[in-house]
Amino acid sequence: MPDPYRTFRDELLTAGLLVPCGADGLYGRSGRFEDIVDAVGARITAAALDQDAGVIRFPPVVPRWVVERTGYHQSFPNLAGSVYSFSGDDTEHADLVGRAAGGEDWRGALRPTDVMLCSAACHPLYPSCSGVQPAGGRRYDVYGYVFRNEPSVDPARMQAFRQRELVYLGDSGGARAHRDLWVDRGLDLLGGLGLIVEPQVASDPFFGRVGRLISSSQQEQGLKIEILTPICAAEAPTAIASGNCHLDHFAEPFGIRTASGSVAHTACIGFGMERIALALLSRHGLDPGAWPLAVRDRLWA
Amino acid sequence: MPDPYRTFRDELLTAGLLVPCGADGLYGRSGRFEDIVDAVGARITAAALDQDAGVIRFPPVVPRWVVERTGYHQSFPNLAGSVYSFSGDDTEHADLVGRAAGGEDWRGALRPTDVMLCSAACHPLYPSCSGVQPAGGRRYDVYGYVFRNEPSVDPARMQAFRQRELVYLGDSGGARAHRDLWVDRGLDLLGGLGLIVEPQVASDPFFGRVGRLISSSQQEQGLKIEILTPICAAEAPTAIASGNCHLDHFAEPFGIRTASGSVAHTACIGFGMERIALALLSRHGLDPGAWPLAVRDRLWA
Repeated sequence: MPDPYRTFRDELLTAGLLVPCGADGLYGRSGRFEDIVDAVGARITAAALDQDAGVIRFPPVVPRWVVERTGYHQSFPNLAGSVYSFSGDDTEHADLVGRAAGGEDWRGALRPTDVMLCSAACHPLYPSCSGVQPAGGRRYDVYGYVFRNEPSVDPARMQAFRQRELVYLGDSGGARAHRDLWVDRGLDLLGGLGLIVEPQVASDPFFGRVGRLISSSQQEQGLKIEILTPICAAEAPTAIASGNCHLDHFAEPFGIRTASGSVAHTACIGFGMERIALALLSRHGLDPGAWPLAVRDRLWA
Repeated sequence: MPDPYRTFRDELLTAGLLVPCGADGLYGRSGRFEDIVDAVGARITAAALDQDAGVIRFPPVVPRWVVERTGYHQSFPNLAGSVYSFSGDDTEHADLVGRAAGGEDWRGALRPTDVMLCSAACHPLYPSCSGVQPAGGRRYDVYGYVFRNEPSVDPARMQAFRQRELVYLGDSGGARAHRDLWVDRGLDLLGGLGLIVEPQVASDPFFGRVGRLISSSQQEQGLKIEILTPICAAEAPTAIASGNCHLDHFAEPFGIRTASGSVAHTACIGFGMERIALALLSRHGLDPGAWPLAVRDRLWA
């Protein structure tokens, strides 16, 4: 039986929507693909007009200390990426060049730098928000590349992809309300584009034996709600957006406080931009010019 | 004497144009900053309308084998970034968590992955262009994040930034003509935004003793022409764009051939988007609403 993920990926590559980069999970995107991403982004902007959200765009790498303070390196060490580079002298460089020329592994001379790849678009936000938030909380609109070390033939499981997030910082009630509001808005927005969407309580893939307990607790508390839609396989729908209550997980380590002085809660909705584009291509076909008029109107009218 | 780079950076942070990320050379950008980047990008798009360029957007990481085949890891090992991650089991994970909890370096358990950070926006393009190019060559419009391991207080020397490139693949004459055409177009475009620009033959910072010889040879051959403008310091202008003749450096390793069957040459112009935005803010002031009308008209009319 052909692998539906590989089949869909090959169709996307053949149609020129994705461009091969020479590794599973890494692709260039054509102008046509990016037009879809940009149009969906504009719909999210329109849906967020009432949020008075501060717009920040972050680079794809973050300081290591920020990751360490969130604990991501312990909870998802297998997905996180640490950046190594060369800090040697001419002698060590000659050794590196010699190894590389001999087809050996030349990376023994590399040493860790102070940066890691960004794992979620909202992670870089929190250290810049230390201190007291206004009454009613504060909202941000962030967008950036994230990295996950999980090479896959599934085109919806890229190693590098973009997340658009609407983030809330304030009290616990405001955080939960933000999450719930944006799961509803996400369902409306994505369903309005003709996708068959359903919300589902979910959990993050915390590493290992202990991680499974944390995942299970997260699920029991209903902290994470994913918006699912079929992309390659109807029986295994893919999360294309995710609403998350973080409790004080990010606020406590970065000293983010509510107007009344207590430790804040944070929440976010994250839209997986490549996955949404792929879901639309899977649902409506590989030629956006032939998509249903109602969908085209919503995206490009 | 105050450091002009640090002073300008502080002004940008105070004005909220940049957002601190907790490390030198890493910044979030506000919506106002991104509006400048987007508007300059639209001018580049307009200048490239006659190029029939294939649009591809690449992610910020590339397969290691692509970097190895270009030799970047040997020529610029100190600037390149290799991605490491954790591939151990529960026991090794417990050790990692223990070290992290004890404030020790937890990265000993990390192993190299098969990806590196992208060092130039056009690098991921070449492996996908193997084979014969059409007569007259082929042009691409690429855009992406690049990484350089060089933390600095100079806001124009970021660790992660975006390059927009117009790339040519074809014969040697076409490559040189493309580079020269685009240096001229770059000077027109950037000068037309009120920047004081000058072209200058330049070289890349190849590593070490041997690298200095390569840099010097590159300079003698006039392969690299930078477009310079003062950002923080008039006496030390900054490169905001760069036109490069690569000879067969990228074509040979990836089997890119001309219509007549010989090894192709490639060339590119690269626009440093953050640097151009910073140059405009330095030249015209931190409030784009108060920029000269002629500049505002060109960017936003």
